[in-house]
Amino acid sequence: MSELRKDPIIGRWVILSTERGKRPSDFAPPSNTKRGLGFCPFCSGNEHTTPNEIMRFHSGNSDPKDWTLRVVPNKFPALNVEGELERRSEGMFGKMNGVGAHEVIIETPDHQQTFATMSKKAAEDVFWAFYSRISDLKKDKRFKYAHLFKNEGVASGASLEHSHSQLIALPIVPKRVQEEIDSARKYYDFMESCIFCDLIDQELFFKNRVITQNDNFIAISPFAPRVPFETWILPKRHESAFQPIDKDFSQLADIVQTILKKINTILNVPPYNLFFHTSPFTEEQNIYYHWHIEIIPRLTKRAGFEWGSGFYINPTTPEDATKFLTEV
Amino acid sequence: MSELRKDPIIGRWVILSTERGKRPSDFAPPSNTKRGLGFCPFCSGNEHTTPNEIMRFHSGNSDPKDWTLRVVPNKFPALNVEGELERRSEGMFGKMNGVGAHEVIIETPDHQQTFATMSKKAAEDVFWAFYSRISDLKKDKRFKYAHLFKNEGVASGASLEHSHSQLIALPIVPKRVQEEIDSARKYYDFMESCIFCDLIDQELFFKNRVITQNDNFIAISPFAPRVPFETWILPKRHESAFQPIDKDFSQLADIVQTILKKINTILNVPPYNLFFHTSPFTEEQNIYYHWHIEIIPRLTKRAGFEWGSGFYINPTTPEDATKFLTEV
Repeated sequence: MSELRKDPIIGRWVILSTERGKRPSDFAPPSNTKRGLGFCPFCSGNEHTTPNEIMRFHSGNSDPKDWTLRVVPNKFPALNVEGELERRSEGMFGKMNGVGAHEVIIETPDHQQTFATMSKKAAEDVFWAFYSRISDLKKDKRFKYAHLFKNEGVASGASLEHSHSQLIALPIVPKRVQEEIDSARKYYDFMESCIFCDLIDQELFFKNRVITQNDNFIAISPFAPRVPFETWILPKRHESAFQPIDKDFSQLADIVQTILKKINTILNVPPYNLFFHTSPFTEEQNIYYHWHIEIIPRLTKRAGFEWGSGFYINPTTPEDATKFLTEV
Repeated sequence: MSELRKDPIIGRWVILSTERGKRPSDFAPPSNTKRGLGFCPFCSGNEHTTPNEIMRFHSGNSDPKDWTLRVVPNKFPALNVEGELERRSEGMFGKMNGVGAHEVIIETPDHQQTFATMSKKAAEDVFWAFYSRISDLKKDKRFKYAHLFKNEGVASGASLEHSHSQLIALPIVPKRVQEEIDSARKYYDFMESCIFCDLIDQELFFKNRVITQNDNFIAISPFAPRVPFETWILPKRHESAFQPIDKDFSQLADIVQTILKKINTILNVPPYNLFFHTSPFTEEQNIYYHWHIEIIPRLTKRAGFEWGSGFYINPTTPEDATKFLTEV
């Protein structure tokens, strides 16, 4: 018997077809491990082929090749950093100039490393780079939100295999984030508590969707996942916007790397998308919203049903996914 | 300079990166024309390999192989047609049994035909089959909505290449449709007119996004398309739910086939998803919502940016897409 489940935050229904009940081995995605064939603009020594660097982490050496992480503008930006917003209408249609920042975080000089395999220090540095860039970009009053995301593997949309993330600073709050915020605010009005904090409490009580946790973070399979092995990572205490907890990112690096390693082990290094949801710049500190990371392994094709309806058919329950991910 | 555009109905922003300005030939999708290798359960003569037929159109002959269209239950249904809804909660989570109908419309006995190439009479019959099945399914009080969709080509999620559509009757209204309805209702409250009717008027005034039209239907490139060559087909006069207009489907068959032929010509027979948005069973006749068809050619990969943000980067403007589609 299949089951319909509703995500309490976004209000999205998913169909869990428990009868088809797919196990990790049923997906057998193309392995994502063959790396380093051909020229790579993100590799050490090719710094001159990227647009001018915005920032770098290095080991104290002035050698241009001596870096551990670089942030550069995207060579083919979706948005342009110069210009005014000029919001205007054409009849009932609204538009504005495509103003925004589109940056690439080159996470390591080593073409063979991924976020899952790099050193923990390197993974922490990636989060420091995110935090540093967001802190800088939010001074620009044209921007309302910074969307952080990572595509790993060709099937995820990544155009370069060298481990990197992207940051897009936007003059609007993305629809999906705004929906979560609106819903969280409604929940707060009614319950006087944060919906994500309550969700964490409930998951800790039920236990069957908790994959792993440490002092500051928890990783869960959401109750109504869109895709098999969808995973969310949330700070356990209320934090409305992405920032270091107790002045460090070590526990965050630890839990994200742990989850990615587990996913890589049971799903044969699948392509995935990872993204942050956090509070907009104008309401960074609040009591109703709770920042988190969502990881979407790209194992199934998104067909017409999902496109037209905004809801998903998922052949693996989150309880099964949790079991598989916990066992490794 | 790229541009940010907002869809007036769904409130979704898209980034149109006009600088990259992709032409049809830039996509060069895999051609979808090699057909008919191997066994096909939808071909004439293999009727016994599908679940028991729900309905068929035929030419008056009692020969089991004499049919022009068949409707059968999906052999691997996402939902089960038997059972009660049993809506219940688990703490803050809502769920119900996966009750619904999942049917397949086999549009033609001929493996070589597609919706674009079949006879106009056959295309009309497909719409008659949709209408007939919806009319039947809405008598079932457990269902609130029937989602009609079509996946063409492997990259669209189609698991069989033989031309077919699917219908899923659901105990809930899909989120995307509900969002459109909510928005259309708000617009009506404010303007006392249907947002789709007003949109059609405006497009007919501007003309630069109108691909083609006949007496009853119009095909447009939406102002804020998610993907290159996204196309909407709408009845020109106000119709809240999918049904024959002036007791026939000939003009609808005509315009859908025309659009698909145009897309096939300029984009080399790409994979696509096509779906209907219509009013739910409980509010079929209303003044605020307007049924329509959306066609999504699958030319680009959906990457992490879209997954996490709910908004899209589209390299082809709808004005350019309209020009390309009009010229063939």
